[in-house]
Amino acid sequence: MSIETPYLLYLGHSTDPVEIKTSRGIAVFRREICVGEFRHDDCPLTLDLPRLTFAEAVQQGAKTLVLGIANAGGTFAKPVIEDALAAMEAGLDLAAGLHQQLADQPAITGAARRLGRKLHDVRKPSPDLRVATGAPRTGNRLLTIGTDCSVGKMYSSLSLVKGLTERGVTADFRATGQTGILIAGAGVPLDAVPADFISGAIEELAPARSDAGWDIIEGQGSLYHPSFAGVSLGLLHGAQPQALVLCHNPAREHMRHLPGYALPDLAECLAANLAAARLTSPNVRAVGIALDTSSMGEDMARRLCDTIGASLDLPCTDPHRFGVEAILDKLLAKDESGIQAVA
Amino acid sequence: MSIETPYLLYLGHSTDPVEIKTSRGIAVFRREICVGEFRHDDCPLTLDLPRLTFAEAVQQGAKTLVLGIANAGGTFAKPVIEDALAAMEAGLDLAAGLHQQLADQPAITGAARRLGRKLHDVRKPSPDLRVATGAPRTGNRLLTIGTDCSVGKMYSSLSLVKGLTERGVTADFRATGQTGILIAGAGVPLDAVPADFISGAIEELAPARSDAGWDIIEGQGSLYHPSFAGVSLGLLHGAQPQALVLCHNPAREHMRHLPGYALPDLAECLAANLAAARLTSPNVRAVGIALDTSSMGEDMARRLCDTIGASLDLPCTDPHRFGVEAILDKLLAKDESGIQAVA
Repeated sequence: MSIETPYLLYLGHSTDPVEIKTSRGIAVFRREICVGEFRHDDCPLTLDLPRLTFAEAVQQGAKTLVLGIANAGGTFAKPVIEDALAAMEAGLDLAAGLHQQLADQPAITGAARRLGRKLHDVRKPSPDLRVATGAPRTGNRLLTIGTDCSVGKMYSSLSLVKGLTERGVTADFRATGQTGILIAGAGVPLDAVPADFISGAIEELAPARSDAGWDIIEGQGSLYHPSFAGVSLGLLHGAQPQALVLCHNPAREHMRHLPGYALPDLAECLAANLAAARLTSPNVRAVGIALDTSSMGEDMARRLCDTIGASLDLPCTDPHRFGVEAILDKLLAKDESGIQAVA
Repeated sequence: MSIETPYLLYLGHSTDPVEIKTSRGIAVFRREICVGEFRHDDCPLTLDLPRLTFAEAVQQGAKTLVLGIANAGGTFAKPVIEDALAAMEAGLDLAAGLHQQLADQPAITGAARRLGRKLHDVRKPSPDLRVATGAPRTGNRLLTIGTDCSVGKMYSSLSLVKGLTERGVTADFRATGQTGILIAGAGVPLDAVPADFISGAIEELAPARSDAGWDIIEGQGSLYHPSFAGVSLGLLHGAQPQALVLCHNPAREHMRHLPGYALPDLAECLAANLAAARLTSPNVRAVGIALDTSSMGEDMARRLCDTIGASLDLPCTDPHRFGVEAILDKLLAKDESGIQAVA
C-alpha cells in the first residue's frame, strides 16, 4: 500500500457519529499523520482537528483526502462525489473504503486521469484468495468479537496491541476493515471478500507464527446481527483464536440500523461465540470484556465494568477510559502458569 | 438468463463423483435438455447420457457446453481451457459456474470473439446487491440445511418443489448455487457474493410472498464446515425460514475435503441451526431429515431412516429412494391444523 500521507479526513455532511468512524479511527490512532478535517456547515461532528478547506489542507502539506465515512451498503452519495472532485482539483489524492469503488465512478476516474491524482480503494479484496483449510496452525491469536457492529472491536484490538507492546510482547494488529487497513497499512477488507473465501482470507491474514508473539485480529459484525452474522462466523472460524475479547456498547438500544432487533445478552453472546469458535480452535477461551462507556460518567462506567466483570467472571474494562491491563493479565497468565483457564 | 439449450455436459478428466455434481444435477433434474456428456478416456464417471465428441454434440443440436465441474476454489485447470477452446471451435457456447470467470480468461474470450460464441458465467453475482434489513416478511419459506457440503440440499429442495406441486401447492425453487441456477434459469450464486451482502442477497432471492405457496430455498455449506459456515449462517438469517429440512450423507467419514473434521451429531447440528435461525424467524421449526443413502442397500437405508427419524422425532427419508411425502405431510400439517409444531 502506498497511500501518501499526511491525510485530510473527510466528514462531509455527516450527522451520525458512527457514520464517520473511519475518519475518527484514523484521527484517534494515527493523529500524527492527519493535518485536519473537512466538514460542511451542517456537520455538527468534529475530530478536534483543524477544520480546513481543501486548498488550506494542501498548503499545510496534505497529500490524500480520506473519504472516511461509512454507510450501510457503501454507496457514493452525490455530495461526496462533488467534494471528491473539488479535492482533486485542489491537489489531493483520494482514498476510500466504501463497497462501491472510486475506480468505478467515471466522473472521479476522469478527473483523476486529467489531474494526475491517485485513487486508493481500500475495500478492494485481493483476486487471489483461497478457501480455508481449517488446518490447525501454530501461533497465538486473539480475536475481538462483538454484541453488535461498531461497538469498539477495532479500538479494543489496537489498545491490546499497544498494551502488549508496552509489556515487551510482540503483537501485530491484523486489520479486517477499511479503517483498520488505513491505520495498519495492510489487511483484508473482509466485508467485500466473496462469501466462499471469508475464512480463507483470515487464514492468510493471520498465518502460522512460531514466536511467542500475538496476532490481534480485528473482529467484524456480530453473530447476532441479521445482516452480517455470516461475516462474523467465517472470521471466527478462520481466525482459530486462542483468546476472545467481547466488545459491547451498553448504551446501544437495538442492533445497529435495526430497531426491531434487541442486543443479545452478554453471557449468551459469549457462549455462542465460544461454541462456534471451538470448531477450529477447541481450547479457545474468553479473556475479557471491552465496553464503550463514552455515553456515561466515569463513576457509572466503573460500576458497570465491575458488575459485568463479576457476572461473567472476566476482566471488564473500557479500553480508552481504564486501559486493558486487566485483560492482558488474564491473557498472559495462561502462558506464565501453563494452566488453561476455563471460560 | 439466455443460455441456449440443449446442453452438452462436461465431465472432462474428473474422477471424483462429487466434482461433477453440477453436470450430474442438470442431468438428473433437466435430462430433457441434455443431448450428451463429454469425457476423456481417463474419466471413469458417467451420467448415463450418450458420450459425444464436440462435433457429434453439435450435429445432434447441442448449443452450449456446460462446464459443470467444481473444485474447491473454483479455478480453471489447463485441460479445461483446452477443451473449452475445442468446443467453441466445434460450434458450442460455454456456460460455467466456477469462481474464476470465463470472461477473465484471455484465451477463451479471444476465441469467443473470433468465433462469435457466447460465454455465460453463472457464478457472477449482481452488482446491485443490498445489505439485509432483517425486516419480517410474509410468505412461506423452507430452507434445506446440511451437516456438510454436498449432502443433497439441492436435490432435496427440488424434490420438495416437485412433491408440493404434485399436491397442488404452488412452490418455487430458489437457487443459490451454480447447478441450481443452471437448472432453474435464475438464482443467486451465493458463494461469490461479497460477504456483507450474503443475507441481503437471500432476502432479494426469496422476497415477501402473499399467496399460500412456498419458496423452497437451496441451502449451502454447513454451520459445521470450517471453510464455509459463514455462507450458511448468512443464508439462514436471510432466508427467514418457517421450516428447515436437514440433509445428511451417513456414508461421509469426515467433512468434505477436511479429513481432520468429523461430521456433527445430527441433533446438535439441527439445534444449532434452529437457534441461529430464530434470530430472524422466531417460529422456525424442523420438518424433516433428508438422507443420501446411495452408498447402501435399500433395507439398510430404510432402517437407518427409521432409526434417525425416531431419535429426532421427525420424518426421515431419502428423497430419491423413498420420496418426500412424509416431510410434506409434516410441513403442510401446520397449515391445515393451525397448530404450530414444536421442533
